[in-house]
Amino acid sequence: MSSVCLSMEGGAAASTPAALPYYVAFSQLLGLTLVAMTGAWLGLYRGGIAWESDLQFNAHPLCMVIGLVFLQGDALLVYRVFRNEAKRTTKVLHGLLHIFALVIALVGLVAVFDYHRKKGYADLYSLHSWCGILVFVLCFVQWLVGFSFFLFPGAPFSLRSRYRPQHIFFGATIFLLSVGTALLGLKEALLFNLGDKYSAFEPEGVLANVLGLLLACFGGAVLYILTRADWKRPSQAEEQALSMDFKTLTEGDSPGSQ
Amino acid sequence: MSSVCLSMEGGAAASTPAALPYYVAFSQLLGLTLVAMTGAWLGLYRGGIAWESDLQFNAHPLCMVIGLVFLQGDALLVYRVFRNEAKRTTKVLHGLLHIFALVIALVGLVAVFDYHRKKGYADLYSLHSWCGILVFVLCFVQWLVGFSFFLFPGAPFSLRSRYRPQHIFFGATIFLLSVGTALLGLKEALLFNLGDKYSAFEPEGVLANVLGLLLACFGGAVLYILTRADWKRPSQAEEQALSMDFKTLTEGDSPGSQ
Repeated sequence: MSSVCLSMEGGAAASTPAALPYYVAFSQLLGLTLVAMTGAWLGLYRGGIAWESDLQFNAHPLCMVIGLVFLQGDALLVYRVFRNEAKRTTKVLHGLLHIFALVIALVGLVAVFDYHRKKGYADLYSLHSWCGILVFVLCFVQWLVGFSFFLFPGAPFSLRSRYRPQHIFFGATIFLLSVGTALLGLKEALLFNLGDKYSAFEPEGVLANVLGLLLACFGGAVLYILTRADWKRPSQAEEQALSMDFKTLTEGDSPGSQ
Repeated sequence: MSSVCLSMEGGAAASTPAALPYYVAFSQLLGLTLVAMTGAWLGLYRGGIAWESDLQFNAHPLCMVIGLVFLQGDALLVYRVFRNEAKRTTKVLHGLLHIFALVIALVGLVAVFDYHRKKGYADLYSLHSWCGILVFVLCFVQWLVGFSFFLFPGAPFSLRSRYRPQHIFFGATIFLLSVGTALLGLKEALLFNLGDKYSAFEPEGVLANVLGLLLACFGGAVLYILTRADWKRPSQAEEQALSMDFKTLTEGDSPGSQ
């Protein structure tokens, strides 16, 4: 903690921590490998992707890995990567990346519900599906609340300051739940498709296990970059001034006023 | 961040944040419900637990939920709950809880390997088993490194300060990976045991899905208590003095000296 206070006092605002770009590059390499490997798994072992056939199901894992894992993870990193851009620009990029993630996830959702309907399969009975719906709803609510607090003009500064840590915590938690849900879905696909062949170390099983470990590593890498105290986005000169004004104005504010 | 600096400067060290006990109580309620529900699932639907029979397998999920989820989670909360005890006492409790967790997890590991050997099943082919072995090894390494840095006398103060944030990050990550691995194992057990009945909303499937959601909620609750900036353990008077001495002594220290 003390290092953050020191670096803020020391005015290190304009510089980028030396190791940060390497960690970000590593996370992006992991994320892109993840997407490529999901594509390779579906292409090599599951017959590829096509909307108007049995291959419609395969759109589901690809969309979810791109939307709710890769893009959602990158949306969380925006404030670490664009450290010296105007805060508003970074906010808009953060919100836009989340919209892309949600739209792609919606396509993935439609793919699986449509496939189930055509095949006459039951919906929403598995732990994967329960977690998945929870993730989608939480993402949507988090986006709406985030938009109305931080982008919609008019939210008072005091409310923003109180909500910010909650927004960050729930954003990271929803992202981690997305990774967990992807792991559950991968496991489900393996057990449905491979059955007994899974325990014979079939290449598809090994590839999918490696994909699962990469998913967990990507989650870990994003979490590391996000939580490292000395990599947090420095508050800029004008924000610090505003924050000072605010502190002076509300010094006598009662904590019970919500 | 700024709130932490303020509270440290303001000397709020001796008091416990008003909401913290309620959140801790809620997390313990979740954790105990989790353990009870795992027992209920195994007792009601899987025939109970016995070491010298086919029921030996059932020791595995129960040991892992008690050891790697509940006790490991509680070990992370020790510094939030015992805020005003001597640092050394809290450290010893943290280390001991992790030893209990590891021993119970070891019993769970032996149970499943022994069961596989008796049945002639293959070992370590699934994503759940890969993640599980990874969690166990990481827990063990983290314990050894943590012990030699923080409890074994002689580690220099500068090394401790540098390692502390890494220890906290990896501890939280290993705990979250434990929760994810438990979800994968639960899913595996459901698909193996229920098969097609899972999609018919059998009571066992619904109970296990709720258990899965509770696992995720417990992970989220521990993470929330652990990461809330204004709930961090305040550094005590003697530590602050030590830290000041250290800062004065090492002000000219080169960052390259490891």
